[in-house]
Amino acid sequence: MSSIEKTPLEVAQMVEEAETRIRQYILHTPLAYTPRLSKDSGVEVYLKLENEQWTGSFKIRGAFNKLSILKTEGVSKIYTATTGNHGMASALGCKTLGLDGIVVVPVSSDSEKKEKLLEAGVNLLQHGCDCFEAEEHARGLAERERVPYLSPYNDYHVIAGQGTTGIELIKDLPDVDAVFVSVGGGSLIGGIAAYLKCKRPQCKIIGCSPRNNKVMHESVKNGQIIQEESYDTLSDGTGGGIEPGTVTFPLCRDLVDDWVLVEEEEIADAIFYCLQAHKKVIEGAAGVPLAALKKVSGNFKGKRVAVVLCGANISTRNLQLILNTHP
Amino acid sequence: MSSIEKTPLEVAQMVEEAETRIRQYILHTPLAYTPRLSKDSGVEVYLKLENEQWTGSFKIRGAFNKLSILKTEGVSKIYTATTGNHGMASALGCKTLGLDGIVVVPVSSDSEKKEKLLEAGVNLLQHGCDCFEAEEHARGLAERERVPYLSPYNDYHVIAGQGTTGIELIKDLPDVDAVFVSVGGGSLIGGIAAYLKCKRPQCKIIGCSPRNNKVMHESVKNGQIIQEESYDTLSDGTGGGIEPGTVTFPLCRDLVDDWVLVEEEEIADAIFYCLQAHKKVIEGAAGVPLAALKKVSGNFKGKRVAVVLCGANISTRNLQLILNTHP
Repeated sequence: MSSIEKTPLEVAQMVEEAETRIRQYILHTPLAYTPRLSKDSGVEVYLKLENEQWTGSFKIRGAFNKLSILKTEGVSKIYTATTGNHGMASALGCKTLGLDGIVVVPVSSDSEKKEKLLEAGVNLLQHGCDCFEAEEHARGLAERERVPYLSPYNDYHVIAGQGTTGIELIKDLPDVDAVFVSVGGGSLIGGIAAYLKCKRPQCKIIGCSPRNNKVMHESVKNGQIIQEESYDTLSDGTGGGIEPGTVTFPLCRDLVDDWVLVEEEEIADAIFYCLQAHKKVIEGAAGVPLAALKKVSGNFKGKRVAVVLCGANISTRNLQLILNTHP
Repeated sequence: MSSIEKTPLEVAQMVEEAETRIRQYILHTPLAYTPRLSKDSGVEVYLKLENEQWTGSFKIRGAFNKLSILKTEGVSKIYTATTGNHGMASALGCKTLGLDGIVVVPVSSDSEKKEKLLEAGVNLLQHGCDCFEAEEHARGLAERERVPYLSPYNDYHVIAGQGTTGIELIKDLPDVDAVFVSVGGGSLIGGIAAYLKCKRPQCKIIGCSPRNNKVMHESVKNGQIIQEESYDTLSDGTGGGIEPGTVTFPLCRDLVDDWVLVEEEEIADAIFYCLQAHKKVIEGAAGVPLAALKKVSGNFKGKRVAVVLCGANISTRNLQLILNTHP
């Protein structure tokens, strides 16, 4: 975790290095054209199906990149925290690369998620009441044992891994005009933006967040990282605060062309649309950029736009709720 | 549509020719390992995700192979029937290859399906009360105009196209011990079996059908194509009768090692499992081989088994029903 700020060009080069390093472990996910949405919106819309990525999320790109590097440096054990996509990605990465991975999860975590982590072959440590306490504990253990703590976003190698999504995008849609990406910690949009702004500067990068949890958006607006209260959102994948000094901040500040905030009902509608029209399960964080595009499609008439559906890991309960509240 | 019976070796060669012909149009769909199911069953289970194929079904393999051949023969127009996966596949094939495709659908067809066909850019003709009448009408029009009628299964070029699924399987899992495939008209299992029995003769081919609609299974058991009453099933993709003299019959008779019939609740459970554990939408016909494997897993302990999830196109209504009737 270097804290020396890197230029977008340096990050783009790291994305290309990541590509070589992780290609064997990740799927080149399909880019699907959407006849109905394109017709309805007047925008040529393509969905980047990271919901179909191994572990159901883009997170394995960053995790494999970071863990591969650590392995070549002789590391044999890491700590991380979260029960979400980063946890699953780290679990698969550690198992595949033969590292000892310990994931700290809050005691109250969803049992379905804990079971999935155990299936993935990770060592589970239950500690604390929430993600913050679990993360603190993981960091403390890592420091004490002098082994790395794997951050889900505040790490250039993680960002570079996520950026390989951009390499696939440009291969499949060389003349893309804009890319809609959800923003939580900012590693996905940071990596994609750094790569695309080097390869295709005219491509607009649109940052998308739920109105209920928009810390990076507010931080960029304020010119500095701020903390603000967040509310419950279907987009749990973009949840949580961002660390002071996170290296994703300058990337988001300098490279994101525009921001869109979406409401909870709009996220639910987007999830339902994917189920009905495309027979795809997407999680809340993936519904966010799709909802955002629908909201501002008027500004992109006739353009070629990609929407990154970042993950599939919605709870069965939420899926059921959405199906039952849509006609 | 040649009615001269071909040997499995001849069909396998046609599969390899199809591979060259259609590769640019189709996805090499992922093969996903299933930690939970493998642990629970003692079988090493892999899912062949044809539910993620373009149009949400394997059917585009056969359609593109047949339509490409017709195009090189100078054909510019075809008729076909069905509102299901074959219709969507034919629609995309015709649009991509620049052929004039006319799909006849029963007047009573589901409006969601008709809309999807229209979106795919096909010419829709509504005729008759059921699939049988729609098909008769399409055949009649094709004959009158002396243009081809595209059969969903009774055609060696269609079978060969579907067989390319087997090429991907062997590439991704060279030492596969058994493959579970759902059987309706028999083109998918016929193509896969012909290819696999040539490349890896020791691999067992397991034919799977819903107990409510098992015409090919009964025909093979009787040594000849029979007609028997079918009942409603979640597996609408394997529905309908099979034509007298269909070329899939000898392939199923000679190459399928074993048959498994499954109940409706077992299909629903399999669909729910995919949603919950893998966040994948699969249709009834894809639930069939998964349910079949769960049923007979005791016979495959320690084996490496692939289950072909042939499609995703379940109705939103059925998906909702299944979610609401599972805990």
